[in-house]
Amino acid sequence: MVEKKNLEIAYKHTDFQVAGHGKRDVQILKDALLAYDGDQNSDMYGKGKIIEDFQDKMAEYLGKESAVFFPSGTMAQQIALRIWCDQKDLRKVAYHPLSHLEIHEEDGLKQLHQIETILLADKNRVIELEDVLSMEEEVACLLLELPQREIGGQLPDYETLEEISSYCRNKGIKLHLDGARLLEILPYYQKSASQICSLFDSVYISVYKGIGGIAGAILAGDEAFTKESKVWKRRHGGDLISLYPYIISADYYFDLRSEKMGQYYKEAKELAELFNSCHGVSTMPLMPVSNMFHVHFHAPKEEMESLLVEIYEETGIGLTSYLRETSNLACNYEVSIGDQYAMVPKEK
Amino acid sequence: MVEKKNLEIAYKHTDFQVAGHGKRDVQILKDALLAYDGDQNSDMYGKGKIIEDFQDKMAEYLGKESAVFFPSGTMAQQIALRIWCDQKDLRKVAYHPLSHLEIHEEDGLKQLHQIETILLADKNRVIELEDVLSMEEEVACLLLELPQREIGGQLPDYETLEEISSYCRNKGIKLHLDGARLLEILPYYQKSASQICSLFDSVYISVYKGIGGIAGAILAGDEAFTKESKVWKRRHGGDLISLYPYIISADYYFDLRSEKMGQYYKEAKELAELFNSCHGVSTMPLMPVSNMFHVHFHAPKEEMESLLVEIYEETGIGLTSYLRETSNLACNYEVSIGDQYAMVPKEK
Repeated sequence: MVEKKNLEIAYKHTDFQVAGHGKRDVQILKDALLAYDGDQNSDMYGKGKIIEDFQDKMAEYLGKESAVFFPSGTMAQQIALRIWCDQKDLRKVAYHPLSHLEIHEEDGLKQLHQIETILLADKNRVIELEDVLSMEEEVACLLLELPQREIGGQLPDYETLEEISSYCRNKGIKLHLDGARLLEILPYYQKSASQICSLFDSVYISVYKGIGGIAGAILAGDEAFTKESKVWKRRHGGDLISLYPYIISADYYFDLRSEKMGQYYKEAKELAELFNSCHGVSTMPLMPVSNMFHVHFHAPKEEMESLLVEIYEETGIGLTSYLRETSNLACNYEVSIGDQYAMVPKEK
Repeated sequence: MVEKKNLEIAYKHTDFQVAGHGKRDVQILKDALLAYDGDQNSDMYGKGKIIEDFQDKMAEYLGKESAVFFPSGTMAQQIALRIWCDQKDLRKVAYHPLSHLEIHEEDGLKQLHQIETILLADKNRVIELEDVLSMEEEVACLLLELPQREIGGQLPDYETLEEISSYCRNKGIKLHLDGARLLEILPYYQKSASQICSLFDSVYISVYKGIGGIAGAILAGDEAFTKESKVWKRRHGGDLISLYPYIISADYYFDLRSEKMGQYYKEAKELAELFNSCHGVSTMPLMPVSNMFHVHFHAPKEEMESLLVEIYEETGIGLTSYLRETSNLACNYEVSIGDQYAMVPKEK
């Protein structure tokens, strides 16, 4: 515990941090508001220029009829799955064993919506066509997370996506995209957001991960779907009188960063290569397919923490503020490349 | 429809508006952030200085062990009722027929929590002790809304509150306060927030009504209750990575306005008296018990709209932007006195 604190403190004292966009401080909001007209009226319960303009912009970007701004992806995705379940009158969906809904949401999907889940594929790899073909039970919806965050941000082939999409369409299974990091994978697939989204019936993206906004999410699909999602948004307590602090910042940082995903991707590959050239270090995946990957150290956590603190103090460069123990002899952490990487001197 | 638009437009063009704190525009947020240190770290999923400090401040103000900041009252109150239902293993609660939960939340309580509701009292009056005593079915929780907004903001006697509280405690019924406008009733009862809250097991207050923040709510109670509420907050999708835009503004406007509720109350009584001295106009309640009341015109809606537009153009003073038809011969609207009243010249 003391060791962990030390690593966190040492990280905070470094001059350069390799990952992320920088500190999540109040200045992020101040910067987004600086040039914004104070006279602009607040959105009111999902209506008004600020929210409607941004929703239209995101609908167009994602190639969907309509989009809705939500306070969180947790809320948006539970609602998406609920709508598809209601439509088929079947409360059953399938997703990866390490889906955000399965491990980070206190079972909201089950507790609030009584939706059963089928876990597809082994937890250490992405969902493949065979996993979908061999599902024995009928489901209303299949959720794919691209990239699969908890295993370092891995992706299936694009052809696999097309095949899964086509299979689901034929079988009457709705396909939902957990695209928390959708923008981050466009450079790898060499596709536009709308090309990828065309394979899915509904799509969620986060506005505070690669984009670097403050909080919030977009849920997109056809008109009937998004209209129903607004009813559920109110039921969940997400139809706030004003969401504009999140919307203005989402819009500001989307414009600032949506075109930089190719750079982050390139830098992630460069950094992963450096790690893989070090003894006892490897990355997952070996060759990143987005701006993110996991760094695995083949050494005990305590030992690595001391070593990292030394490196930070010597070089002024911070790699991570934490380590997760994976066994007595190994540990790892997650990297997401953002604006800060380009500022690190190449001396490392 | 055209007439309604005209009233709304005429209202927007007036020099002075009698009710409210002013336009809900982005400047509200900019003002709150102006003197705020940009270096301050964001709250992170309910943790960190910004959120913890404000929660502690509100817990102390409300005289409760602990408080939690929520994105909305809709979310906070459903969760409060769910916790009390789970504790008693009985999914049944009682509240007023015009409770926010019954008429403004798309039945979230029933759809997400499968909680049955018992509607107490006639919809045109507040819940009295007899209504509670004569409940035939067992419930886990009774919710009281103070003041009862949909009937102009009415209140029971303070003794009634004490009797209901004492009865519920003896019967093992949890008592929850919908205190969306709790601060606004303190001058009438001549009690502190914590005195009133001591009658209740759990309390919700809004930070954007009388206080005039941007959005958000506080839910307070004992430690075990608020701890469980955080789990449900995550399930609902309300445990956002950053809630600070709402918290900073709530704190800023709480400090600015919490002491002004007595003034708003006095002004509301003054204005209601003026209305009641006009032919064909009356207020509900006749004598306000908070900063709010309803104005009833005993004339057809279209006729009143034309008349109001004329008054606005002549005096430059706006009373309301809308009217609700209550019959062919009557209509009404809601007034909540805020900072703007003091700015209106007394020429009216």
